[in-house]
Amino acid sequence: MKVHLDCFPCFLKQVVIAVRLGTNDEVLRERVIRSALKEIELSDTGKTPAHSTTFIHRRIREMLGGDPFSAIKSEYNRKALAMYGGLRESVLSSPDPLFTATRLAIAGNIIDFGIFTSVDIEGTVSRALAEPFAVDDYRDFMRAVGNAGDVLYLLDNAGEIVFDRLLIETLLSMGKRVTAVVKGAPVLNDATMKDAREAGITGLCEVIDNGSDCVGTILYMTSPEFNRCFREAGLVISKGQGNFETLMNERKERMFFLFQAKCDVVSRELGLPLGAMLLKRGEAAAR
Amino acid sequence: MKVHLDCFPCFLKQVVIAVRLGTNDEVLRERVIRSALKEIELSDTGKTPAHSTTFIHRRIREMLGGDPFSAIKSEYNRKALAMYGGLRESVLSSPDPLFTATRLAIAGNIIDFGIFTSVDIEGTVSRALAEPFAVDDYRDFMRAVGNAGDVLYLLDNAGEIVFDRLLIETLLSMGKRVTAVVKGAPVLNDATMKDAREAGITGLCEVIDNGSDCVGTILYMTSPEFNRCFREAGLVISKGQGNFETLMNERKERMFFLFQAKCDVVSRELGLPLGAMLLKRGEAAAR
Repeated sequence: MKVHLDCFPCFLKQVVIAVRLGTNDEVLRERVIRSALKEIELSDTGKTPAHSTTFIHRRIREMLGGDPFSAIKSEYNRKALAMYGGLRESVLSSPDPLFTATRLAIAGNIIDFGIFTSVDIEGTVSRALAEPFAVDDYRDFMRAVGNAGDVLYLLDNAGEIVFDRLLIETLLSMGKRVTAVVKGAPVLNDATMKDAREAGITGLCEVIDNGSDCVGTILYMTSPEFNRCFREAGLVISKGQGNFETLMNERKERMFFLFQAKCDVVSRELGLPLGAMLLKRGEAAAR
Repeated sequence: MKVHLDCFPCFLKQVVIAVRLGTNDEVLRERVIRSALKEIELSDTGKTPAHSTTFIHRRIREMLGGDPFSAIKSEYNRKALAMYGGLRESVLSSPDPLFTATRLAIAGNIIDFGIFTSVDIEGTVSRALAEPFAVDDYRDFMRAVGNAGDVLYLLDNAGEIVFDRLLIETLLSMGKRVTAVVKGAPVLNDATMKDAREAGITGLCEVIDNGSDCVGTILYMTSPEFNRCFREAGLVISKGQGNFETLMNERKERMFFLFQAKCDVVSRELGLPLGAMLLKRGEAAAR
């Protein structure tokens, strides 16, 4: 997945969202936007959008002197935690807890205020539990989980990770060894170790960081330790569009992508409507 | 009305629309976008968005070696002309032809593919004829038309000008001397002399150009001849958001703005919902 012409205005929209969250100083906001324009100009259309946004958001954080998403990330962790009890109930009472937890994990991917400014979590949860998915490799997924001893779980956004916690708990209850992965440093609304702690994941399973502040998972920018885990994992669960963009050609049939198509470019590339939910096995050839 | 943070992504969106219309060469498209980013960076937030987009679209035309909107403008003129007979019927059969023609002229303002990529003309016409306007100074307008000997009519977009033709014809039938104004050179989808000819306006009344390639009407960039007409006109009808942005503080109670609030920034500034239709007298103090 490469940078598309439509990505350029979207990059800039993300910048505006970030500066609004990061400072009330109108002069500084404007200065960051102008500086980000220079960074957008350098976007490499031979690479993924995640590459561009990585550099753009680095510049934003540098200029703001901190992470503009810090407060809103904690807020979304809290909001999602308030839903946790009820959601856990639906998983435990489900005839197929893995199915329900997987669907909820995909529903949670709606919490992505880096792109959207408002989210309808409850509506998305109902939709995820009731409607068929655009791409649904659940049978393959179920089989792969059954066969795997260990699962590497690439987390995506703060808030969303409370939904991932349900799936991680389900995998643990099935006797799987789960390693959850967060970002090595803040970028956009992506989960870091602090978010994993806030969401109660650090007490459940091993949580490692990928040593990187990249959007998605740009392997050559992640740590050697993470790379080793990634190569060796029996099964990789990849959450979110950023991880899909950057990992869609990796690890083949041992990868499962759980996400929603949240932008025109990605949904068009997949031939799916905007908002489509996907549980997608890596690489079509493996089907 | 000044450049707002939200204008920046919108500027870039307009650039993407323009390059898509202007060339099929992906490499050139990308080059123009990168160059436009430099121009966007220079946006003066102390001036109107129309100032910025004027410079941005100049650069786009220079790099593409022509007007990217040329073909689509003629297409929209043709589409609107196909509706002309029926619309003229509604004006002539109306108990108040000035009212109906005025509303249709405002409905026609939906044809603005510089911002939107698809438009629902029929739906907008029904809405304009049936629903109350967000701002409706029609009584003042009717009185001002009654008192005016001559009317200066600032046209906005290609296609839309067929709707303006109905109002111009109505004004002429009331014995008014009408001078219609087009842009001096192509910019966005704005009407030029060629469009006035295509829409059949040149045969009806005097049509002059404003000597400028600016979005809206930036007075100091227009010709001395146009400036004289503007200062001396008994009544000025100003079509579209661009003209409103750039002229809202001019000519006071002799100005009437006919337009739709087509972006978040303008509708927020006016305290009206997006898509609101307005027939607005210049300057609140004149009410």
